[in-house]
Amino acid sequence: MKIKPLFDRILAEVEERENKTSLGIELLENDMVKKAKIIAVGGKTEPIFKVGDYIYFEENFAVKIKIDQKEYVLLRQFDALAYEEKTHEKEL
Amino acid sequence: MKIKPLFDRILAEVEERENKTSLGIELLENDMVKKAKIIAVGGKTEPIFKVGDYIYFEENFAVKIKIDQKEYVLLRQFDALAYEEKTHEKEL
Amino acid sequence: MKIKPLFDRILAEVEERENKTSLGIELLENDMVKKAKIIAVGGKTEPIFKVGDYIYFEENFAVKIKIDQKEYVLLRQFDALAYEEKTHEKEL
Amino acid sequence: MKIKPLFDRILAEVEERENKTSLGIELLENDMVKKAKIIAVGGKTEPIFKVGDYIYFEENFAVKIKIDQKEYVLLRQFDALAYEEKTHEKEL
Amino acid sequence: MKIKPLFDRILAEVEERENKTSLGIELLENDMVKKAKIIAVGGKTEPIFKVGDYIYFEENFAVKIKIDQKEYVLLRQFDALAYEEKTHEKEL
Amino acid sequence: MKIKPLFDRILAEVEERENKTSLGIELLENDMVKKAKIIAVGGKTEPIFKVGDYIYFEENFAVKIKIDQKEYVLLRQFDALAYEEKTHEKEL
Amino acid sequence: MKIKPLFDRILAEVEERENKTSLGIELLENDMVKKAKIIAVGGKTEPIFKVGDYIYFEENFAVKIKIDQKEYVLLRQFDALAYEEKTHEKEL
Repeated sequence: MKIKPLFDRILAEVEERENKTSLGIELLENDMVKKAKIIAVGGKTEPIFKVGDYIYFEENFAVKIKIDQKEYVLLRQFDALAYEEKTHEKEL
Repeated sequence: MKIKPLFDRILAEVEERENKTSLGIELLENDMVKKAKIIAVGGKTEPIFKVGDYIYFEENFAVKIKIDQKEYVLLRQFDALAYEEKTHEKEL
Repeated sequence: MKIKPLFDRILAEVEERENKTSLGIELLENDMVKKAKIIAVGGKTEPIFKVGDYIYFEENFAVKIKIDQKEYVLLRQFDALAYEEKTHEKEL
Repeated sequence: MKIKPLFDRILAEVEERENKTSLGIELLENDMVKKAKIIAVGGKTEPIFKVGDYIYFEENFAVKIKIDQKEYVLLRQFDALAYEEKTHEKEL
Repeated sequence: MKIKPLFDRILAEVEERENKTSLGIELLENDMVKKAKIIAVGGKTEPIFKVGDYIYFEENFAVKIKIDQKEYVLLRQFDALAYEEKTHEKEL
Repeated sequence: MKIKPLFDRILAEVEERENKTSLGIELLENDMVKKAKIIAVGGKTEPIFKVGDYIYFEENFAVKIKIDQKEYVLLRQFDALAYEEKTHEKEL
Repeated sequence: MKIKPLFDRILAEVEERENKTSLGIELLENDMVKKAKIIAVGGKTEPIFKVGDYIYFEENFAVKIKIDQKEYVLLRQFDALAYEEKTHEKEL
């Protein structure tokens, strides 16, 4: 992907919100909190953020952008509320 | 639990508000103050916050999230007002 | 008391506002300023705050909470305006 | 006086606003600026503030309190605009 | 003058706004900017401010006060926009 | 170009928004996010910003300016959200 | 000129906005951005600002003042967006 987040920002891909994904995203009842998969991280983010992990964030803290028909978000690392490691997917 | 709070955030489980719990939660008259059990803490929280303890917080400082039918809150540690240690439950 | 204030917060008990207490509280004409007895202090408060002393504070800076029918306030130490030492009660 | 100001706060007594006091207070045309005599100072005030001196301050920066029928103000030291030394009274 | 400005504040005397003073004040078209002669400076002002010099300031950053029928302003030093040295008067 | 951005500011040229450019700009669905080519950088910008690269930014954080019929934006470096390196153009 | 800007402020003269000046000022389409010639700089400005150079600034960040029929602006250095060096005039 050509576009790279700057400084402490994270680029994440918003998954399609189907009610039947194995990721639990459909269980977030409060529509203000979203979940997205990390695609790229800026050079000043904490090592905690790894490509492939998931982040939870409040929608109004993220900037939305759509490239090649896919929806992404850009958000500052300290606005991320929580995360899930990629390896947890195997556990499911 | 797969989801982990980030930085100085705390993930806490909101107990069902029955009027007869042994924890006194039903006595909080001011609806702005809530009580919840700590489930997980971020890597930058103070050691004061231990899983199983209870925190008191103002509802409008917390972000609500519902996973697998249970209601949780995510809040920054310095927005927590007071706490009760788990061991006090035995004392009751 | 099980509940403990966090960081620089103070837990104080609001005395009943009778017009005839010996503590002078009934003389506070401005309803924004309140007086309450210190019950517990957080680990990061100044040594100036001692259990049993009284603090004066502006009501809108305090968070109210009611436990076991008694009304308490939680406030940050730097929002306390003035204090009276417990020993002054004897002087009355 | 039992009540003591905290930190960088000053407790001052608002003089009665007679148009004929020898202190010049009646000449303050702008009602936002007030003058009051210092009664007590908090432990973190500058040595410039001495009991008996007068401070000028903007009314909306002060917290009013009435004890034993007298009106006092509590204000932070850096909200005081100007002062007059007590010794100047003799000069009048 | 008995009254002394505190900290980084300046006490200045607002000159009467006649259209014919030799000081150019009548040429200030924007009514938000005012000019006044420095009367006294607080102990924490920069040495740039000398009694007798003139300061330009935005009216809404100054606190007005009237003593013995004269109008003064109190303003923080960093809210002063520009100045003119007293010696320039001779040049006129 | 005579005009030079100051401090941490970036001067960038807004490309014409045709739906068929090879740069993907037409795919930005959210009109708040814009893309522009860097023309000049201030002396206090990070080395990450190189003339010819592209930056993504939120429109309301940029100041628009039009010189010689071309539209430019001036924005602070930390308000830039993401970037694309010039060399990526060759890859297309 | 008698009036001197204070601290990090710049005094600049707004040129008459004729559509035919050789300076390009007439091409600024966005009326929020203005251009003015530096007349004097405060003692705490960066050496980048030299008398005779031009600065670009957003109008609402500048304080306007009119002396001897000429319009000037006073603005803080970090509110200046961009500049043009005086020597560029020769190049034209």
